[in-house]
Amino acid sequence: MSVEKNKVTVDIYGQQYTIVGEESTEHLHKVATAVNEKMREIQSMNHSLETAKLAVLTAVNSVHEYYKLLEKSEALEEELKQYRK
Amino acid sequence: MSVEKNKVTVDIYGQQYTIVGEESTEHLHKVATAVNEKMREIQSMNHSLETAKLAVLTAVNSVHEYYKLLEKSEALEEELKQYRK
Repeated sequence: MSVEKNKVTVDIYGQQYTIVGEESTEHLHKVATAVNEKMREIQSMNHSLETAKLAVLTAVNSVHEYYKLLEKSEALEEELKQYRK
Repeated sequence: MSVEKNKVTVDIYGQQYTIVGEESTEHLHKVATAVNEKMREIQSMNHSLETAKLAVLTAVNSVHEYYKLLEKSEALEEELKQYRK
């Protein structure tokens, strides 16, 4: 049995991308919109950045936020352990 | 009073980037390493991708993982609410 995949074509920073995932098309669009907005936000602060560098900095920003959330999530799990005992 | 910022110069996919943040230099290096590895991983599956598109897909991937973690984190918070009552 294979997991059904969804596929959407999205526009990010003026380029078309086809994104495939097991998540809903709504989720895939939400992710693309977030990346697009983050790229435009970083671009507005660094007008001279070429697209590749801008995209790398967007990835850096996203991974940074991921790690911050991971710390928070791990703290929540630790707290839950106390209650679940 | 201003918050002290840390600054590191890192290599991501063959380019130098200066990253500034309130986090430790260790954290900033960890983020850069993760982006670098993710870009190389995506590149290994799509050899013909130009760097800008590769970086955008890396950002897409990171934001997707962020949202998945956010869902998990929100579920943990909901569960904690039951105990904290």
